[in-house]
Amino acid sequence: MDFAYSPRARQLIAQVEAFLREEILPAEAEYRRQLQSHDGPWCQPPIMESLKAKAKAAGLWNLFLPDNEWGAGLSNVDYAPLAELSGRSFLAPEVFNCNAPDSGNMEVLAKYGSPQQQERWLKPLLAGEIRSAFCMTEPAVASSDATNMQARAVVDGDSIVCDGRKWWSSGLGHPHCRVLIYMALTDPTAPPYARHSMVLIPIDSAGVKIERMLPVFGAYDEPFGHGEVSFNAVRVPLDHVIAGPGRGFEIAQGRLGPGRIHHCMRVLGAAERALELMIARARSRQAFGKALIDLGGNRDIIADARIALEQARLLTLKAAWMMDTVGAKAAMSEISQIKVVAPTVAQKIIDQAIQMHGGAGLSDDTPLAALYAYARVLRIADGPDEVHKALIAKLELRRHPEVPV
Amino acid sequence: MDFAYSPRARQLIAQVEAFLREEILPAEAEYRRQLQSHDGPWCQPPIMESLKAKAKAAGLWNLFLPDNEWGAGLSNVDYAPLAELSGRSFLAPEVFNCNAPDSGNMEVLAKYGSPQQQERWLKPLLAGEIRSAFCMTEPAVASSDATNMQARAVVDGDSIVCDGRKWWSSGLGHPHCRVLIYMALTDPTAPPYARHSMVLIPIDSAGVKIERMLPVFGAYDEPFGHGEVSFNAVRVPLDHVIAGPGRGFEIAQGRLGPGRIHHCMRVLGAAERALELMIARARSRQAFGKALIDLGGNRDIIADARIALEQARLLTLKAAWMMDTVGAKAAMSEISQIKVVAPTVAQKIIDQAIQMHGGAGLSDDTPLAALYAYARVLRIADGPDEVHKALIAKLELRRHPEVPV
Amino acid sequence: MDFAYSPRARQLIAQVEAFLREEILPAEAEYRRQLQSHDGPWCQPPIMESLKAKAKAAGLWNLFLPDNEWGAGLSNVDYAPLAELSGRSFLAPEVFNCNAPDSGNMEVLAKYGSPQQQERWLKPLLAGEIRSAFCMTEPAVASSDATNMQARAVVDGDSIVCDGRKWWSSGLGHPHCRVLIYMALTDPTAPPYARHSMVLIPIDSAGVKIERMLPVFGAYDEPFGHGEVSFNAVRVPLDHVIAGPGRGFEIAQGRLGPGRIHHCMRVLGAAERALELMIARARSRQAFGKALIDLGGNRDIIADARIALEQARLLTLKAAWMMDTVGAKAAMSEISQIKVVAPTVAQKIIDQAIQMHGGAGLSDDTPLAALYAYARVLRIADGPDEVHKALIAKLELRRHPEVPV
Amino acid sequence: MDFAYSPRARQLIAQVEAFLREEILPAEAEYRRQLQSHDGPWCQPPIMESLKAKAKAAGLWNLFLPDNEWGAGLSNVDYAPLAELSGRSFLAPEVFNCNAPDSGNMEVLAKYGSPQQQERWLKPLLAGEIRSAFCMTEPAVASSDATNMQARAVVDGDSIVCDGRKWWSSGLGHPHCRVLIYMALTDPTAPPYARHSMVLIPIDSAGVKIERMLPVFGAYDEPFGHGEVSFNAVRVPLDHVIAGPGRGFEIAQGRLGPGRIHHCMRVLGAAERALELMIARARSRQAFGKALIDLGGNRDIIADARIALEQARLLTLKAAWMMDTVGAKAAMSEISQIKVVAPTVAQKIIDQAIQMHGGAGLSDDTPLAALYAYARVLRIADGPDEVHKALIAKLELRRHPEVPV
Repeated sequence: MDFAYSPRARQLIAQVEAFLREEILPAEAEYRRQLQSHDGPWCQPPIMESLKAKAKAAGLWNLFLPDNEWGAGLSNVDYAPLAELSGRSFLAPEVFNCNAPDSGNMEVLAKYGSPQQQERWLKPLLAGEIRSAFCMTEPAVASSDATNMQARAVVDGDSIVCDGRKWWSSGLGHPHCRVLIYMALTDPTAPPYARHSMVLIPIDSAGVKIERMLPVFGAYDEPFGHGEVSFNAVRVPLDHVIAGPGRGFEIAQGRLGPGRIHHCMRVLGAAERALELMIARARSRQAFGKALIDLGGNRDIIADARIALEQARLLTLKAAWMMDTVGAKAAMSEISQIKVVAPTVAQKIIDQAIQMHGGAGLSDDTPLAALYAYARVLRIADGPDEVHKALIAKLELRRHPEVPV
Repeated sequence: MDFAYSPRARQLIAQVEAFLREEILPAEAEYRRQLQSHDGPWCQPPIMESLKAKAKAAGLWNLFLPDNEWGAGLSNVDYAPLAELSGRSFLAPEVFNCNAPDSGNMEVLAKYGSPQQQERWLKPLLAGEIRSAFCMTEPAVASSDATNMQARAVVDGDSIVCDGRKWWSSGLGHPHCRVLIYMALTDPTAPPYARHSMVLIPIDSAGVKIERMLPVFGAYDEPFGHGEVSFNAVRVPLDHVIAGPGRGFEIAQGRLGPGRIHHCMRVLGAAERALELMIARARSRQAFGKALIDLGGNRDIIADARIALEQARLLTLKAAWMMDTVGAKAAMSEISQIKVVAPTVAQKIIDQAIQMHGGAGLSDDTPLAALYAYARVLRIADGPDEVHKALIAKLELRRHPEVPV
Repeated sequence: MDFAYSPRARQLIAQVEAFLREEILPAEAEYRRQLQSHDGPWCQPPIMESLKAKAKAAGLWNLFLPDNEWGAGLSNVDYAPLAELSGRSFLAPEVFNCNAPDSGNMEVLAKYGSPQQQERWLKPLLAGEIRSAFCMTEPAVASSDATNMQARAVVDGDSIVCDGRKWWSSGLGHPHCRVLIYMALTDPTAPPYARHSMVLIPIDSAGVKIERMLPVFGAYDEPFGHGEVSFNAVRVPLDHVIAGPGRGFEIAQGRLGPGRIHHCMRVLGAAERALELMIARARSRQAFGKALIDLGGNRDIIADARIALEQARLLTLKAAWMMDTVGAKAAMSEISQIKVVAPTVAQKIIDQAIQMHGGAGLSDDTPLAALYAYARVLRIADGPDEVHKALIAKLELRRHPEVPV
Repeated sequence: MDFAYSPRARQLIAQVEAFLREEILPAEAEYRRQLQSHDGPWCQPPIMESLKAKAKAAGLWNLFLPDNEWGAGLSNVDYAPLAELSGRSFLAPEVFNCNAPDSGNMEVLAKYGSPQQQERWLKPLLAGEIRSAFCMTEPAVASSDATNMQARAVVDGDSIVCDGRKWWSSGLGHPHCRVLIYMALTDPTAPPYARHSMVLIPIDSAGVKIERMLPVFGAYDEPFGHGEVSFNAVRVPLDHVIAGPGRGFEIAQGRLGPGRIHHCMRVLGAAERALELMIARARSRQAFGKALIDLGGNRDIIADARIALEQARLLTLKAAWMMDTVGAKAAMSEISQIKVVAPTVAQKIIDQAIQMHGGAGLSDDTPLAALYAYARVLRIADGPDEVHKALIAKLELRRHPEVPV
């Protein structure tokens, strides 16, 4: 048993930390200003492109991609601390070209894409030149149950015809968004796990309509945003189907494991930043003749946050290690466990950091409100807590076929 | 001991419930549409004025005001269930002319205002023709400790000169906002509770500058909004000071008791609506072959919500009853208790209702995200939880001068 | 709405408080000594009989019994604060002749007993001369579901023959215990609520065997105790059946409502005492140069305890008021609500009081360990939390047949 | 990063698991019977000696001792899973000769004892022939603050004279208990960490008086027990002082780190057993036509328990790994973290397992009540939660000397 990061991970951690401290954190305010002041918030602030260029030059680019050929070839365990660091700033994931959903889309294309698909979509994604969206969740049904999916993608000769409505497609509003990965039912009579397909749909295809952008607690997360989008008899060539019709479910499963680890580490990074901000505030703010840190139960809040964070991080790292060593299937319970616990822990700590800041914590004077929304969303996205708990319990029962008293 | 509402309260409850059901809830969507589609969100949607006219005609107007002459003359206990009902819709408080901070400002003017002040400000406020703001909290210091206040209001001959910066002044963005009640330090050498003044400052006075509007989780609560405002050598006649210089602290104290009861009842109304929405969703949404209501611990969540709500409501009603019978000073602990528990209970229930709705709960397709923000703000506004808990503990210790074992 | 106790309740509260302070609390240590030092802990300590005599002389006797003829004739609301006071000392319920299960058994006999049954059992119970037990829960099945009951009571001519095994029959170990109320299945073919009977079985009947006494966390609650008892072809005359065969379920229902209110108020009294002890300890104990009260989050713990207690008490009083005004059936949800919340609140507060006492809190140097066991038992007895929550949720769903959004 | 146990640990885990399953768990009932039926509960049940002999023969003996010469020489990380397994049965620690406080006392003697002390006390302890106690906590002061200690051990020529009163000395009641390690103040004028001494006092020394045995929730944990003991001018030769006068504090510090890891792993083993019992019960018990596992939120409870357990175990293992690699001082925060979280998690899970068992869970028909008491005690023993949280917060503040926003 060894809890130390590998030498390669340690070196990357040092580099990413330095880049965060020196380049990204100081740029947050300017980014926000540019977002407000340019041609509206749905444009790419120029400072982002310059940060991306610096990160690329420093080799801090596409670190998420386990594929050696296309990406950094890091294991899940080695990438995890970098994902965590990227959660400390809302700018960081894009700067390092490892933001969701592009990272998951790139993984899918690297693993399942045809050479043509990789040439057309993966290369510009890896270069940070275009962005993409992932269209799976639907407004009309509980998407936590995949069998509820209503969208269709019907093969018609050498093309495939897509009809459906999706929402919470993150990144749909980005001015660079060029392609959507659309998941839909192709053959309802096939075996349950061979019914769905994933189709690459250029965003400007006829029949694709962005119905609206969706707010989270009133914020739109510009310029990425979360969109509701309808597909009306959208026809694309059959070679736009990833790995061929009927493989959608399989691809989705493979996409979710690492994605959940990235999200969990990132949200723990968000919680670490919230804890730092809480401590800084508690020390510097005075009331009733004392710094807040010396009032009431504030030190207990900090201790409890530290305990919760350490535990959630270790569990996430163990899940990553299991992904690396025994695979996603054997790590199924652990992945569901972190998916429940990391956002929950983060939501609580960020809420407490908000409280320590008073009104400032709710405004956009600190990153806390945005971090909070991220943690809150994550308790629903990629499977709500309830679905993961049900799975954990089911696997737990299997572990105890007969229990001796 | 009698837990029944009085006949008068029962009759008003029935009327308000009917008005809510028939007039207000059906108007919510149109209100939101008008807010988006008119000249930007900082305008008054016409439908609001028409709802106000109907409410006024129905006698459901200024019910909050305990003063018999100016208002409905209801006791706190009789008004409480009406305040709760008004929390079910974000439109309702304004429709009934009982929205914060106008309600508190009207109470102050009814109780402490000079006839001239009442004529100029109270009457149009009571008529719903103008709106007002309350400027107390400051950005640079922990305002939970009133002795931190830095803003100044210095008497200079027969005028008073105001310098300071305030934020979280709710209602500051409303197009009808005409007057600010500004609280500031007048005489730092006076006894602690006689140092402050409350000054009526017309919003268009020279030196008043709205610096910006503040978001809560990214939402601006238009058209009311929460503002940051600076006062730069703002000079108004001395007769604009409410009850004369040095009475600010006393007035603030009197203002807070009923205000907290209103807020607590309203937030419980918000929680009741969230519970209803949660139940409706849990029944109508299907996953894994069952309605959500029959999955996992969802029924326990509903039971726990009911238990928490009943308790918080009873405690709030008891605090109101104590205000009516023994006064604010004797009810100090109970008022602090409800100020802690009502928003906390509401925040939890609304969060669970959001979870039951999946992504829809975070968007503006339901009122949940806005209700959540209201509950969250309330854990900070009018004294953060921590300050109230410290007070409750202090009063509790006094109750047990010597404790027998 | 009126939160004040009635004049009669106020007077009785004052008397019971004085009696507690002057007679009962000072006797606790001596009682414990006598329990250890006499002929073993299953004997009645003489000091108890002298306390009972004093209470009887002071008129503080059988206050629980709503029946005017046999008891004090107090409403549930008027008795509630007295029940709470009796929860402050483990001696008090017996001293006032209002301890479970005798109080419930007396209520049953007063309401459903025949004149002969009342003469033989009720009178000596009311006089405090004998004790009784209630035999309903069974070891082999989940007794939270009444339809699981396996014990039988079969009519055979003019006698009834009882076979079964019961446990958690409280009071079974008391040297004065003379009669058991045994509940069993009489006719499995009758309509569901007419299948059971309650039979009065003298403890010395042939076939009654006390198998063992059951510990709670290792403590036996002598001299009352909780017993496991088998009934082996126990034959008693048919006139020992309360209200006749087939009425068992109906009687049990009527017994549970007030019983739960008594238990809930008593456990809140226990929690109030724990809070007092916690405060006394926190003030008198020093560590790291301060009294514990001024360390860490201890004041928050006290504030949270106060808030939780006030709420739970109000809800219990409301349930009592509903019992008095609209009856047990209409108060069903509220009774289940208090049955969940009162023991839970008490368990938490007593646990915190233990923590504040360090090792002493776990020992028998304070009453805390015994109070804790009482609260913990109550989360299972008279229906576990889970069953009550399921009922609350079911009733809640009924309340919202169609929920408007 | 590697979450796998070492080959040696894996082999020992398999052996200990088999021994538990085959020898210890089946012996629990007989042990309890012997404890009741022999000459009272303060005698050693013969079955224990036979289990000890088997464990010794199997080489599962003194595994806790990191010293290569005297013990198994396992690292903390390798011993941790074995400590966890030993927590599954209240018999196991003694069977494997690794029960507290003997294990800690043996470690102290192995590390600091003189050859004579080791010959006289360590050898028979390692052989399992005698037992010992550790006398540190005092009844009259808050012992969480070591500077409060009042007991004295004054050097007088070539002897040392001990006066003081200690309690919660575990193992004091064991019939084989022969020696006490007594910690006391020797020189109040020395530097703070050089004031105390640890003295080996034979239990039959003149002036040693066992005042009473202390119950935990009414249970005495026979035959070990927790004692209150007075030392009245107890005089022993100066060579009975471990490592010489003034080294008590240093020795205590060294003793606590591994001891806390052992306790935390053991209590997690207790929680694992509770979870197993909970699952077995939830599957086998029926109510309302379903197994309990399919009722209400029971599956969520199991999922939450699994998540909490995994996290607490990983954190404990990390603390053990830090002890092994960077030492106790650098692991100070992590050790305090596990000391807070492991017993808290265990207490909650065991409480839920009790609830799932109904009344049986509170009785001694299952090991749950005893496991619960162990977890509860541990939130106080070796430093209460509150003291550890204060330390964690203090160390956390040090980590963030200046926090960038």
